[in-house]
Amino acid sequence: MPQTTHDVLNIGNAIVDIMAHADDDLLVGQNLIKGSMRLIDANEADRLYDLMGPAIETSGGCAGNTAAGIASFGGKAAFIGKVAEDQFGKLYSHDMSAIGVDFDTAPLADGAPTACSMILVTPDGERTMNTYLGACQELTTADIDVKTVEGAAITYLEGYLWDPPQAKDAFRRAAEIAHGAGRRVSLTLSDSFCVDRFRDEFLGLIRDGTIDILLANESEIRALYQSSDFETGIRALQSDCRIAAVTMGAEGAMVVSKDGIERVSATPVDAVVDTTGAGDLFASGFLFGLARDMPLADAARLGTIAAAEVIGHIGARPAVSLADAARQVGFKI
Amino acid sequence: MPQTTHDVLNIGNAIVDIMAHADDDLLVGQNLIKGSMRLIDANEADRLYDLMGPAIETSGGCAGNTAAGIASFGGKAAFIGKVAEDQFGKLYSHDMSAIGVDFDTAPLADGAPTACSMILVTPDGERTMNTYLGACQELTTADIDVKTVEGAAITYLEGYLWDPPQAKDAFRRAAEIAHGAGRRVSLTLSDSFCVDRFRDEFLGLIRDGTIDILLANESEIRALYQSSDFETGIRALQSDCRIAAVTMGAEGAMVVSKDGIERVSATPVDAVVDTTGAGDLFASGFLFGLARDMPLADAARLGTIAAAEVIGHIGARPAVSLADAARQVGFKI
Repeated sequence: MPQTTHDVLNIGNAIVDIMAHADDDLLVGQNLIKGSMRLIDANEADRLYDLMGPAIETSGGCAGNTAAGIASFGGKAAFIGKVAEDQFGKLYSHDMSAIGVDFDTAPLADGAPTACSMILVTPDGERTMNTYLGACQELTTADIDVKTVEGAAITYLEGYLWDPPQAKDAFRRAAEIAHGAGRRVSLTLSDSFCVDRFRDEFLGLIRDGTIDILLANESEIRALYQSSDFETGIRALQSDCRIAAVTMGAEGAMVVSKDGIERVSATPVDAVVDTTGAGDLFASGFLFGLARDMPLADAARLGTIAAAEVIGHIGARPAVSLADAARQVGFKI
Repeated sequence: MPQTTHDVLNIGNAIVDIMAHADDDLLVGQNLIKGSMRLIDANEADRLYDLMGPAIETSGGCAGNTAAGIASFGGKAAFIGKVAEDQFGKLYSHDMSAIGVDFDTAPLADGAPTACSMILVTPDGERTMNTYLGACQELTTADIDVKTVEGAAITYLEGYLWDPPQAKDAFRRAAEIAHGAGRRVSLTLSDSFCVDRFRDEFLGLIRDGTIDILLANESEIRALYQSSDFETGIRALQSDCRIAAVTMGAEGAMVVSKDGIERVSATPVDAVVDTTGAGDLFASGFLFGLARDMPLADAARLGTIAAAEVIGHIGARPAVSLADAARQVGFKI
């Protein structure tokens, strides 16, 4: 096996979040499904932006948020994703290097701008995302750096990568390289509507062994197995997948493997301010733990620590050191 | 007098804030003077950006922040400032219209990018600003819309406008139009280093009656009169200026006019998180109050309410309705 250079290589859509508070009325009036992510084109992005309140801009994207979490745990993280050569792209690259995540994907020179997601945060803390993929559409196999994949204990891919058509090939290529180097591959299902779009393909990837570690939440598991019964989904998952972690909001998470099914409690929070990034940050703790060979339940506990931190404030990336937070509850990392 | 269309027209540098937490060590290592604003060129901006932590981006700029405060009080505000036709410019324009501030200045088509200020927030809540003026350099008299100036009860100008050379003329032109329409003109001294750069010109503007209402803080008054004795400065101010409000941090503010000198207490805050925008938001309450013909001390109290709100969180614009905050302490607005 090549030398391990990174705990986790995160591959996903490089997106700048444009976050604003919004009333439920705006969601209803625009037929937006609370808690979901929908893809929009440039025209719809302009139209919706005009309806949004004053915003703050931060780096986001599922895999990018997960990379930020891993770095905050003290892990070594890399990121592959496509930004454009514009102000948002510079902002995104800056934030990655500023937190110590290796990010060397060549930016798109002439073409669509850096992706953005207009995120409406309702008073209940739920987030509803409207994503214009822009430059992310141009992520290709050429962007998959072989050495980086080979050197990462885990290569983590977001289900949203299935939306930009060329990124699928990049996804498959990364998985091939990782397995060729004796590494593990992880996937998050990203969103139940994403699962609806690509159910058969995702099930194929899980069942043919492309995916070693699956991350999902309850509604994504229901969507994957088209079952309203969560237990049915969990049993199917145990049969289909080597390792899976399923988040259940305030109910914590369930860790599923051939060895059994284990429930881990959520880390308590004072108030849920903004759920943006909750799943991404759970993934950061879980994957960091697995990369460091922790037992599954301990890795999931790291996940709940990270998720609890990020839902306590606006924004999808940790505001404090997750390594410190983990040490405070007894982790030796 | 023409019909009043706005309480306050705010004219200033249109700047996107790039805010990050920083240790005192970074300030010391870079020879940055805590609490100050310095102008930097594009190269220095790139160099400093590389040293900064992960950031959040929001609309800023003194006069822009003040406009946001006035809108939050329920006042009618307009803004004149120069952005470029780029992502930060779009972000800035969006935030202005989203909060109901009229902002129609034509963006710069080919030239420097939208201005940005790299703001380092230290653990004590102090902010240290490093501003690249970019497109702001191109604000000219052509951008001063006569009807908007004539229709504003107060035209408010930031001292920082004296830095971009052409903006000086725009500043003077706006003051002429305002006085020609029987309106009042206000100036903030912006920063003690700004006063050091333009002391004689600012004193000239105050003494020749160009300025009807002056806003400043303690260190700016000391810089203006080159006196370490604050009381000396206040007496000089009373002789030079019709109306002045001088902020004194936790000590509140002092209102100075020919009728006397009055002290107004600060509105208490639980914790100072980030002082960015404190002076700008004080100005918003004070000017809104004057535009609505409130007594000076009441206007200053509105100023302290707005300042207290903005220093309780990261970012230079109000996170809650200032009108509600004012009503809660008995203001009928």
